[in-house]
Amino acid sequence: MVDDIDTLVALTPEAFREERHIDARVLHEVVEIDLTGRRLQVRQLDGTKKAWWEPFDQLMIATGALPIKPAVPGADAEGVYGVHTLQSGIEVRTAVDRGRPKRGVIIGGGYIGLEMAEAFVCRDMEVSLVEQAPQVMNTLDPDMGALVSEALMAVGVTLYRGESLKGFEVKDGKVQGVVTDKRTLPADIVILGMGVRPNTALAKVAGIPLGERGAIVVNERQQTEIAGVWAAGDCAQSFHLVSRRPIHIALGTVANKQGRVAGINIGGGSAAFPGVVGTAVSKICAVEVARTGLQERELEQLGWKYASERIESSTRAGYYPGAGQITVKVLAERGSGRLLGGQIVGYEGAAKRIDILATALHGGMTVGEMVHLDLSYAPPYSPVWDPVLIAARQVEKLV
Amino acid sequence: MVDDIDTLVALTPEAFREERHIDARVLHEVVEIDLTGRRLQVRQLDGTKKAWWEPFDQLMIATGALPIKPAVPGADAEGVYGVHTLQSGIEVRTAVDRGRPKRGVIIGGGYIGLEMAEAFVCRDMEVSLVEQAPQVMNTLDPDMGALVSEALMAVGVTLYRGESLKGFEVKDGKVQGVVTDKRTLPADIVILGMGVRPNTALAKVAGIPLGERGAIVVNERQQTEIAGVWAAGDCAQSFHLVSRRPIHIALGTVANKQGRVAGINIGGGSAAFPGVVGTAVSKICAVEVARTGLQERELEQLGWKYASERIESSTRAGYYPGAGQITVKVLAERGSGRLLGGQIVGYEGAAKRIDILATALHGGMTVGEMVHLDLSYAPPYSPVWDPVLIAARQVEKLV
Repeated sequence: MVDDIDTLVALTPEAFREERHIDARVLHEVVEIDLTGRRLQVRQLDGTKKAWWEPFDQLMIATGALPIKPAVPGADAEGVYGVHTLQSGIEVRTAVDRGRPKRGVIIGGGYIGLEMAEAFVCRDMEVSLVEQAPQVMNTLDPDMGALVSEALMAVGVTLYRGESLKGFEVKDGKVQGVVTDKRTLPADIVILGMGVRPNTALAKVAGIPLGERGAIVVNERQQTEIAGVWAAGDCAQSFHLVSRRPIHIALGTVANKQGRVAGINIGGGSAAFPGVVGTAVSKICAVEVARTGLQERELEQLGWKYASERIESSTRAGYYPGAGQITVKVLAERGSGRLLGGQIVGYEGAAKRIDILATALHGGMTVGEMVHLDLSYAPPYSPVWDPVLIAARQVEKLV
Repeated sequence: MVDDIDTLVALTPEAFREERHIDARVLHEVVEIDLTGRRLQVRQLDGTKKAWWEPFDQLMIATGALPIKPAVPGADAEGVYGVHTLQSGIEVRTAVDRGRPKRGVIIGGGYIGLEMAEAFVCRDMEVSLVEQAPQVMNTLDPDMGALVSEALMAVGVTLYRGESLKGFEVKDGKVQGVVTDKRTLPADIVILGMGVRPNTALAKVAGIPLGERGAIVVNERQQTEIAGVWAAGDCAQSFHLVSRRPIHIALGTVANKQGRVAGINIGGGSAAFPGVVGTAVSKICAVEVARTGLQERELEQLGWKYASERIESSTRAGYYPGAGQITVKVLAERGSGRLLGGQIVGYEGAAKRIDILATALHGGMTVGEMVHLDLSYAPPYSPVWDPVLIAARQVEKLV
């Protein structure tokens, strides 16, 4: 557990000012972008001053994403929380510390939902999770998601899969229950983990072109289609290096890389962000979950022919203390054998192996080439044949 | 600790016979290869039968490597052990269990030497290690090797670096001390960890061409230069995909891959082993050590111009419990920016990151391309910028 909230703040406004000589104005809101006049209308959130106009030469939009809030009755009740900002995290923690809720219900089985389910289990709460899809973690294929569902149930989370949220039961302004299309679950606290959408209303009104899922369209240099206007992070679109199509991925890794590229270019340098391969990783209690590339659903949408194989192996040499199960799934293009994606579910040491697959995707490798990757081996780290190589070897036979 | 020795046996002669229908004859020695007559002279090690000739159609040589034994007085004394086979491991363990030696001296600071130093420290012995080079683990550059030396000293191993073995003090046939060019170290037990050489005397006498360090020359299919004669594993040469030169690497990963390729080809299939990038990993108490590609010494021998940078980061997000230090060194070609190698020393979760660099070497990536690798991030696994990316970014500025 992290005890000091301040350790979670990467940079304070003071550090921006003093160390980087950047005038970071917090508690200020931009209410309008005037592209013709090259100016922003700004107001202070404490309301002490009227809105005013600030001119700009170059504009960088980094408005991030907003959590999706369901349009159902009771969503604004006390006890229903999104977990999006450090502040919302503090609010949930305070609510749990003070109210000592017994029954927690999580809506959505994505990264936030699963991480909050874990946190509630650690607080000895009775935890239920409602997920619309047949399995949690639908960034994995259903067969791999099923392993994550099992892991959640093993730590005591009650899963309601294939169920839709219909509303909340509310009494005196406080949430009492979660209503799905199949049942009502009593709830003392509810977490919304229904994903995010790009926070681009301001950009849209200003006439800055939006693309995939409403994210701002940018080129490799992070330029929008408007001269002198840049965007990066969860509000901006990315390019998927495997599908060769635009994609919106709201992850810190992508945001950091895009921000760095935008900063270099705005500062007069030259940098390009080629794109992403869709890598993500999470931890639910002892279970590590990772994915990269395209999953079956995406490949079917693209109409691409693929082969896939799922193998079970061990995180360490079988005889080595602490060896845990690992399941690796690899997907490759039929005919060419080109690697298209991979997914991993397993115990300690499992997840970071996804980086091998991510690097191979960047390199455009085939599963045949991957079989001979000179990966590291010692009994504390791996079997002689790393599980990733075993999976590649099995898929090679099918392509 | 592994309690049951049998769990370390991958395949018994019975399993070979019953499951794979292979007549694996243990305790048999081939004493001569007759290439003209296509036959082997064989004897049984229990001596019950005279040597006889066995014919062959295809011959696979998998004689492995032999530990290097120093040509100094006393090397055959009781209490001086090599650690090469399962049997030699059992002998050391028995000697420690029965004799309860107090002072252990390790000769050589490579993988075997360091792993045995750890094992002796765990047995509460007084451990000294003698290494000819300025730092232990000379498959790393000296600046990275120094970190491993420090880690060894931190767990109580006394290091004698830059010292050569001259002989052993022996009394009544038992080792009493280790004599170096600078001092005599009292010793109750001595471990020789001076590396291995290919076990190819038999092949050499038969006229099978040898190459790098006396290893058998093979092509991508694991064929020797003699028709119908194959070789794989520690007795065979490999091809280094970065230096584009032959190399001898005695590691289980390489042996397994070569053996599989040879087996497929001998069985009438078609497979090729393209080569290695020189990946290796080890664990010394809590410290993880990994390397891949070419190191400075090799690059200087090749006369290649390179840039390198060493960075320090964290194995997990800085605020996350269990975050440990990690040092990553990356080497790249000046001008092209092509990745040439990498080295990692750090705590839990550090070492397996070497696979990212190994995969990038296979893909022929530049450090500029590596900066944008879509690697996985979650606080339990990594900072937002994986240490490997930070190192690549720093080297990119120098090439």
